[in-house]
Amino acid sequence: MSVEKKILVIPGDGIGQEVTTWGQKVLTAIARNYHHTFTFDEALMGHVAIEATGSPLPDETLEKARQSDAILFGAIGHAKYDNDPTLKVRPEQGLLKIRKELGLYANLRPIKLFDELLEASSIKPEILQGADILFFRELTGDVYFGEKKRSEDRNTASDLMIYHRYEVARIAHKAFAAAQGRRKKLCSVDKANVLESSRLWREVVLEIAKEYPDVETEHMFIDNAAMQLIKDPKRFDVVLTANLFGDILTDEASQIAGSMGMLASASVGDAIGFYEPIHGSAHDIAGKGIANPLASILSAALMLDISFGLKEESSRVIKAVEATLRQGYRTMDIANKHTPNDFFLSTDQMGTKVLENLS
Amino acid sequence: MSVEKKILVIPGDGIGQEVTTWGQKVLTAIARNYHHTFTFDEALMGHVAIEATGSPLPDETLEKARQSDAILFGAIGHAKYDNDPTLKVRPEQGLLKIRKELGLYANLRPIKLFDELLEASSIKPEILQGADILFFRELTGDVYFGEKKRSEDRNTASDLMIYHRYEVARIAHKAFAAAQGRRKKLCSVDKANVLESSRLWREVVLEIAKEYPDVETEHMFIDNAAMQLIKDPKRFDVVLTANLFGDILTDEASQIAGSMGMLASASVGDAIGFYEPIHGSAHDIAGKGIANPLASILSAALMLDISFGLKEESSRVIKAVEATLRQGYRTMDIANKHTPNDFFLSTDQMGTKVLENLS
Ligand SMILES: [Mg+2]
Ligand SMILES: [Mg+2]
Repeated sequence: MSVEKKILVIPGDGIGQEVTTWGQKVLTAIARNYHHTFTFDEALMGHVAIEATGSPLPDETLEKARQSDAILFGAIGHAKYDNDPTLKVRPEQGLLKIRKELGLYANLRPIKLFDELLEASSIKPEILQGADILFFRELTGDVYFGEKKRSEDRNTASDLMIYHRYEVARIAHKAFAAAQGRRKKLCSVDKANVLESSRLWREVVLEIAKEYPDVETEHMFIDNAAMQLIKDPKRFDVVLTANLFGDILTDEASQIAGSMGMLASASVGDAIGFYEPIHGSAHDIAGKGIANPLASILSAALMLDISFGLKEESSRVIKAVEATLRQGYRTMDIANKHTPNDFFLSTDQMGTKVLENLS
Repeated sequence: MSVEKKILVIPGDGIGQEVTTWGQKVLTAIARNYHHTFTFDEALMGHVAIEATGSPLPDETLEKARQSDAILFGAIGHAKYDNDPTLKVRPEQGLLKIRKELGLYANLRPIKLFDELLEASSIKPEILQGADILFFRELTGDVYFGEKKRSEDRNTASDLMIYHRYEVARIAHKAFAAAQGRRKKLCSVDKANVLESSRLWREVVLEIAKEYPDVETEHMFIDNAAMQLIKDPKRFDVVLTANLFGDILTDEASQIAGSMGMLASASVGDAIGFYEPIHGSAHDIAGKGIANPLASILSAALMLDISFGLKEESSRVIKAVEATLRQGYRTMDIANKHTPNDFFLSTDQMGTKVLENLS
């Protein structure tokens, strides 16, 4: 069954420009091969938007985002802001604002280990091989958004770790539904032995689990999860967790994947999905044509799966990436001393290889 | 210079009984070899104390603890409590109460990797080799002890993440002082980019760092720290962090050490130090004489270093453990399929080998 989708491309800053074009080309190739109709528009966000309009998220971009079915994003940030905290208008504000405006409450991060890159991780290949985890991190609540206080004498400081039932419920439903389409295992991570907000979290997850009897649910404390993730990553399928714990676990997990240059993420809510590589704008290598386009390509694969429900098309893209790696091709960030010169590719050469493996 | 010290031994429950006797024997041997005077007393805590007196921490034990210079503790817990949440008097209460009564605000956990056990970890040996980290985890504050609330409709739950300046200052001083006696590097872990309590934490650490100009101080966000700990554990010397972040990082780090059966910890405050293996009472193997006594022996080594300032004696114990491992001796938990039958030792055989290597 062919679908019609409107995709907004926001390349953003730094290497975002160079890599996002390959995510888009892969989507175009998939549309052609599977007879779907994807129409693309493009918009500005971040430093490039500030330079052009004065705002990191111009109204026009937000308007186009609202009209789209999904957004393919690159990266945001520029060196000039890093060492000048006095600049009030900053690229990151664009990202925070678009997440808020589009109601994106769940961050999804797949940790999929490509056999060819097993050696890149600090963890032993036999521990990693076959690991395939999908994290669901809550994005709108928790200690990041609860009330912050500092006493008048400046000697006491606090942050409120707070969750509402509906916030837990809506992301739990998404995570359970995803588990049904995978290996049917869900691990909810909390600290219910000491935290009241975690006890609410667990209460809601236990309740919702009943609606998904085919999914095997497990509850794990965050400290144990941080350990199990390294000890035996293969035991995890879908991992569901709160904002702070998810922040910690997904960064830890990105290391088990070996390279940040390979990881994609999605931020979703009730309507539009927002897809992006987890690597940043990497201004040190921007414009050199050496960035790794695979995370943008895998972001496109994630969009096909999550926003459009096109599982076959999505795994077709992942297989093309796998094939390219198996052929031995590497960009700088995933190459090592055994990579022959001829297999050391630029951004565009790498993107081209994936396209070839797609057709 | 010879010292006189009073040491209280609290074997507690399960394998605590079997292993703590070896920690004590090692302390006795060190006293003899270095002409110190250690006098020992013994007391009850946990399940055994409940059975004998009705209380998990009898007044007599607390009194003896207050009279001592340091405490060597085993483990706490019994199977009968695990599946019966209705039991109101529980072994763990003894541990929580003694920590509170003795004002133990800092938990120290050394992660020292023995070359002989490098293979036991899920992390590659070349990444681990040489790693030697000392964690300082704050024990009295943070989201575990801040006010907990549940709304009347049960739909909102919160925990207050809170720190007072003096709580951060006192543990920071301990951590900086420890760094001076090590590789002179301290990494303070927080989430100061989003949390007010972390901003106070960082403010205090920055201030106190000035008093230790010979220590190189670094600040790291918790999510990045969770990643760096696996990526490059060797970069860390002393790690200083809050209660929740420390809970997570020390569990993660115990996995990089390969086996919990080898790890010791200390809880210290302004006076008495409390030393214990991080493994629990392990009732499944209690009484069988197969538990690993090395964590109790390493707890004794930690006591010599931290409470008594006997660095040479402490490293003498660690070297004896190293030598024993190098000779190929293993208890069940650290043996593998390559361990010859003759080198597969009981608790008492293993303890005896360490004593031999001490003399
Ligand atoms: Mg993070
Ligand atoms: Mg823990």
